[in-house]
Amino acid sequence: MAVYTEVGDEDLAGFLARYACGAVRTFKGIAEGVENTNYLVVTERGRFILTLYEKRVAEADLPYFLALLSHLAARGVSCPVPVADRSGALLGTLCGRRAALVTFLDGVSLRRPRPEQCAAAGEALALLHRAGRDFALDRPNALGPAAWPPLAARIGPRADEVAPGLAALIAAELDAVATGWPTGLPQGVIHADLFPDNVFFLDGRLSGIIDFYFACTDALAYDLAVSLNAWCFDVGPDGCHVYDPVKGRALVAGYERVRPLDPAERTALPTLARGAALRFLLTRAIDWLHHPAGALVVPHDPRDYIDRLTFHRTVETVATYEGDATARGVA
Amino acid sequence: MAVYTEVGDEDLAGFLARYACGAVRTFKGIAEGVENTNYLVVTERGRFILTLYEKRVAEADLPYFLALLSHLAARGVSCPVPVADRSGALLGTLCGRRAALVTFLDGVSLRRPRPEQCAAAGEALALLHRAGRDFALDRPNALGPAAWPPLAARIGPRADEVAPGLAALIAAELDAVATGWPTGLPQGVIHADLFPDNVFFLDGRLSGIIDFYFACTDALAYDLAVSLNAWCFDVGPDGCHVYDPVKGRALVAGYERVRPLDPAERTALPTLARGAALRFLLTRAIDWLHHPAGALVVPHDPRDYIDRLTFHRTVETVATYEGDATARGVA
Repeated sequence: MAVYTEVGDEDLAGFLARYACGAVRTFKGIAEGVENTNYLVVTERGRFILTLYEKRVAEADLPYFLALLSHLAARGVSCPVPVADRSGALLGTLCGRRAALVTFLDGVSLRRPRPEQCAAAGEALALLHRAGRDFALDRPNALGPAAWPPLAARIGPRADEVAPGLAALIAAELDAVATGWPTGLPQGVIHADLFPDNVFFLDGRLSGIIDFYFACTDALAYDLAVSLNAWCFDVGPDGCHVYDPVKGRALVAGYERVRPLDPAERTALPTLARGAALRFLLTRAIDWLHHPAGALVVPHDPRDYIDRLTFHRTVETVATYEGDATARGVA
Repeated sequence: MAVYTEVGDEDLAGFLARYACGAVRTFKGIAEGVENTNYLVVTERGRFILTLYEKRVAEADLPYFLALLSHLAARGVSCPVPVADRSGALLGTLCGRRAALVTFLDGVSLRRPRPEQCAAAGEALALLHRAGRDFALDRPNALGPAAWPPLAARIGPRADEVAPGLAALIAAELDAVATGWPTGLPQGVIHADLFPDNVFFLDGRLSGIIDFYFACTDALAYDLAVSLNAWCFDVGPDGCHVYDPVKGRALVAGYERVRPLDPAERTALPTLARGAALRFLLTRAIDWLHHPAGALVVPHDPRDYIDRLTFHRTVETVATYEGDATARGVA
């Protein structure tokens, strides 16, 4: 959430001269996106986001991301649309970074989405999955199950600095994933990071989705499992994160209004949700353990995902996510 | 240049409900201003900057800053204009911080201003001084000469970690200030931080001035001396900062088009410029020595101000700033 690369007015003018977007009226670094540098650029012809890709995004993946945004936008998904320069290129270079200009989306992200907003997020996720069906490119999920053991190894015994017992919990979960991870589920383009920060609302309606830089090809239901973790937990009075079945039911129902889950996906959902919680727990624990003292950007607390993971371990069937208390397993 | 306080959508809506600015359409943290947290807020009724004042700005000074902006704007200075809430208040509270809503200014700041842009900055500074003449409030310069010895004491012997010999240079300059600082010069409202980052240009013309959070009552010519340091040095091929008399002449001439300097101010300018260089050298050296390792925001290099200070020590009369080489003292 910071500007990693400072762009001067002359560099900007040189870059924008390649586009037919007119003269610049406003240029401001914005704190959006953890991975990249983003500027708001207002020109005579419209409002844009200029993104400079920093080292955490692999340059080889950029054509995938930009082609995906163009593809989804052409199929009605409200997402940033890459703007082609006069030569037709979507990707340029600015201040030593690969850089792209995309359209600006109005709207405000929600810190505590209500159930009807969870439903809107679920529906938008399914529409995204549908719009991605005929996307030609593939990108493996670099943070999928195969990546979790090496991530866990980077944390190692320091896991217990995050929370006592975490090393054992991670080891147990890696075992569970190794033996029980579902295969053969419907695959396609997934967003893989559909948190409330990445969804804008305007006038009470979902107005756009941003930050596609984890998008990849994976099980569609895994994307829903990521969103269950991201949208359907509340902070309880003790600071712990507690599952809200009203929100979960709304999210799943919103999704199924567009794309009903098949039986295998419904069966797999608890395992997928555990895996998704583990994935964010691992990356957040790494950021937590490695962030410099006194840094301005304080990483997300990984313990929020211990709460989630602990909950998912008690869930046996999707009915629990939908609020059927009788379906809950033994805690 | 970062968002220190994260504001959620509900907090924002609660804050803005006190204003007649309509519903929010866009809300983005922006990387502007070193001291405070700033958000771009676009509503149905216009574009605004929401500022949350962080600990480096004294709360007792906020009424001064906001009244000054209102005063200057009413006299034609293009600066952010504080927006009053429905009760008439310019200052509110948000997320535990004092906060204000001000109007948004279009324009882009320049990394390497050309002479005609230096002239425009000088003219705008004089117009600001003129517009401030009848401002009723006073604020002592918290970073004026009386503050420099304690700042130097905070650096102490570590000055030589910044550059060998710096401790001795600082000591010599403090002595020079103690004996030779001019008194009795015309006083008034000064910006005290008119760097190119704080001046916007649009369509080739100066379009606005921002960041008044060092503004205070002090010698008007000291403000010009700050700007001489900020606008009129170029980076030479060896990385050193070299005075550009064409820019200096343009800046002073631009200023004098509106407000001619009196003889005492002209005589004092070299001393004022040395003092201004020392002031930024001291605060930058402190930030440099105390910034956390690995922090995202890298402080300005204090050595840039050693170059400036070293130059000013060779200047005997204002004619040198204006490009008269025969007036230059012995280097």
